[in-house]
Amino acid sequence: MKVISGGVCAPKGFKAGGIWCGVKASSKKRDLALIYSEKCCTAAAMFTTNRVQAASVLVSRENTASGKLHAIIANSGNANACTGEEGISAARRMAELAADEFALNPKHVAVASTGVIGVPLPIAAIENSIGALANSLRFDESGHAAALEAIMTTDTRKKEISVELEIGGLPVRIGGMAKGSGMIHPNMATMLCFLTTDAGISSQLLDSSLRRAVKKSFNRLTVDGDTSTNDTVIIMANGESGIPAITEENDNYAVFASALEECCILLAKAMARDGEGATKLVTVTVNGAADEKTAETLAKSVAGSNLVKTACFGSDANWGRILCAMGYSGAEFLPNQTNIFFKSKAGEIKVCSGGKPISFSEENAENILSADEIEIVVNVGSGTGSVSVWGCDLGYDYVKINGDYRS
Amino acid sequence: MKVISGGVCAPKGFKAGGIWCGVKASSKKRDLALIYSEKCCTAAAMFTTNRVQAASVLVSRENTASGKLHAIIANSGNANACTGEEGISAARRMAELAADEFALNPKHVAVASTGVIGVPLPIAAIENSIGALANSLRFDESGHAAALEAIMTTDTRKKEISVELEIGGLPVRIGGMAKGSGMIHPNMATMLCFLTTDAGISSQLLDSSLRRAVKKSFNRLTVDGDTSTNDTVIIMANGESGIPAITEENDNYAVFASALEECCILLAKAMARDGEGATKLVTVTVNGAADEKTAETLAKSVAGSNLVKTACFGSDANWGRILCAMGYSGAEFLPNQTNIFFKSKAGEIKVCSGGKPISFSEENAENILSADEIEIVVNVGSGTGSVSVWGCDLGYDYVKINGDYRS
Repeated sequence: MKVISGGVCAPKGFKAGGIWCGVKASSKKRDLALIYSEKCCTAAAMFTTNRVQAASVLVSRENTASGKLHAIIANSGNANACTGEEGISAARRMAELAADEFALNPKHVAVASTGVIGVPLPIAAIENSIGALANSLRFDESGHAAALEAIMTTDTRKKEISVELEIGGLPVRIGGMAKGSGMIHPNMATMLCFLTTDAGISSQLLDSSLRRAVKKSFNRLTVDGDTSTNDTVIIMANGESGIPAITEENDNYAVFASALEECCILLAKAMARDGEGATKLVTVTVNGAADEKTAETLAKSVAGSNLVKTACFGSDANWGRILCAMGYSGAEFLPNQTNIFFKSKAGEIKVCSGGKPISFSEENAENILSADEIEIVVNVGSGTGSVSVWGCDLGYDYVKINGDYRS
Repeated sequence: MKVISGGVCAPKGFKAGGIWCGVKASSKKRDLALIYSEKCCTAAAMFTTNRVQAASVLVSRENTASGKLHAIIANSGNANACTGEEGISAARRMAELAADEFALNPKHVAVASTGVIGVPLPIAAIENSIGALANSLRFDESGHAAALEAIMTTDTRKKEISVELEIGGLPVRIGGMAKGSGMIHPNMATMLCFLTTDAGISSQLLDSSLRRAVKKSFNRLTVDGDTSTNDTVIIMANGESGIPAITEENDNYAVFASALEECCILLAKAMARDGEGATKLVTVTVNGAADEKTAETLAKSVAGSNLVKTACFGSDANWGRILCAMGYSGAEFLPNQTNIFFKSKAGEIKVCSGGKPISFSEENAENILSADEIEIVVNVGSGTGSVSVWGCDLGYDYVKINGDYRS
């Protein structure tokens, strides 16, 4: 597998584009994106587990149930959440508008929204611009770049990936774009992620590969503990690579699923690094747990602790907070068998042995923790369960960004 | 019931004091406190639910099991947590040192610690100062004030209460002091709370009244979602008021238990208001839930949301985050029957009706949310469950305080 350029337009047969239609009234930044495949795709999708679900989520849940999609239309600047029946109508209208441009069945269009909650979606802005958006679609990277810009809100970095792998001697491509930097917590995150592939694969296997990949990527990501109303991950597969369609869990499936997982992990890490106000990507790895689930619970509790996150911001080797966060996670482990290490490109240091303090160089620890990618490694010494999760530090800018998000 | 002065020294027969012994090596602020009753007390205690428990918690759990106490010794500046067998020995030694001063059984002394985790407790500092501490004990308010100062860490306000009530025609007093401003989350908080009373009451009923009071006060408090390794609430009752001892759940018990609950609620609110970096006390009230447990789960999820807390900091009427936090709480409710209001001394405003936006004056909402005590009231319209929980906003100073706590 090799990384290539092109994002969601890297796989054959996918066009994308993004424009400013006016949902982001004040900034005039791109706010409406479209991804389109002329050939009908098999598709799979996953959505937020929040009991409060955006209108776009409710409509996309219906529209992806058949396992078939031609297009995804998405806006930023407004989440179309907590907007009642009117919001549902607006989300349906978005699908219709995109469908009409290409003479599609509106049921084959997925819809996604991100932005402020509880404000009616100005659907007229989208109606007025859908023609221009459809005309702007490109097969090349410029299309992908415009679409990606149009789904960003407080994101400061572009999060995209495209890879090429080989299945049965033929090149197959997977591309993806994601947005998300706040209201991010496992299951899943305030995130939108759109994936494309020119693999041919049944919607059932596309679904199982997506679930497996999301479990090990976006569901191991936390920024601020808030699970959004709008989380959406969608994958479309159009078969344009020409490989024989994958219809059983054979070697070809394994190769595809593993590449998809790797793409999702890369996008998840990019989201953590771009966490609102974050200055550091913080990877928390728990080794030696009784099982994978225990390791994941422990690691998420550490990555989600505000006190651990502020210590990371301050490059403070305050390992007691790590043990404390593991202690209230609800997972079983033996504190007196626990060792804690800090790692980064600047080195590695052990700071706790058997749950007790050991002497270490504070200066060295601070140096290690000052890197922009740091890892907290915890070994609980009671089994083989090992999991890494991704988070970020908590700095002043998180407060700045979220203290007055709406204005 | 009336509020009186005197804190833990308000009830007859309790002395208290606090000195600097050197655990807080750099600041020279008071760091060692003692509360003492010559007459042996019935006692009850509750401790953290964290799997990682401070040595002081382990020792106090043993020492309070008999339901009898003469004294509580507490230090700040070091949590004596994650300190292994050496930490246990140090905590036992603290109890012995206090016991020796008054010829007590060390098993009748409770121990508490608060401060940095994972650093050995400098027990020699306490050994050297225990005599001076014992000599400093006073029955008057100066003793209480010194003891209270000596348990404070990042606290910026003194949190104390004393009340007088009447039981069977005789005056009975309850006094309390608390510390806690960070690592605070239900069940219970990084908090120490010491309560005294001159009521006579069996240790069994003292225990049940304490559990009831803690459930409705400290367990409905959240500052940052981190449950500490050191949380401790202890109550001592010495019977010096002369009332017939309360030994059954009669009217006298009800009067006592209700007064104790009120004292604990006042201390819990004081802790929320003093949350690290907080500028506002935020009360979240959920009415109309199916039952009390549902109301509490919903309210805690709102009060604990970083996004809600930063919006409160910014006086931003971003009610969508409230509905979102309720949505991921795991509790059942009907979003489309939910109404949301903001309240403060500046007025009251409805911002969401039936889960949907309504037009309201942003200026008025901002004015209401700018007060230093604000209330978020949510009515979910499906039952009679009603609960208030207390939290605070999340501002820049939380990051400042916790980015480099140890230095």
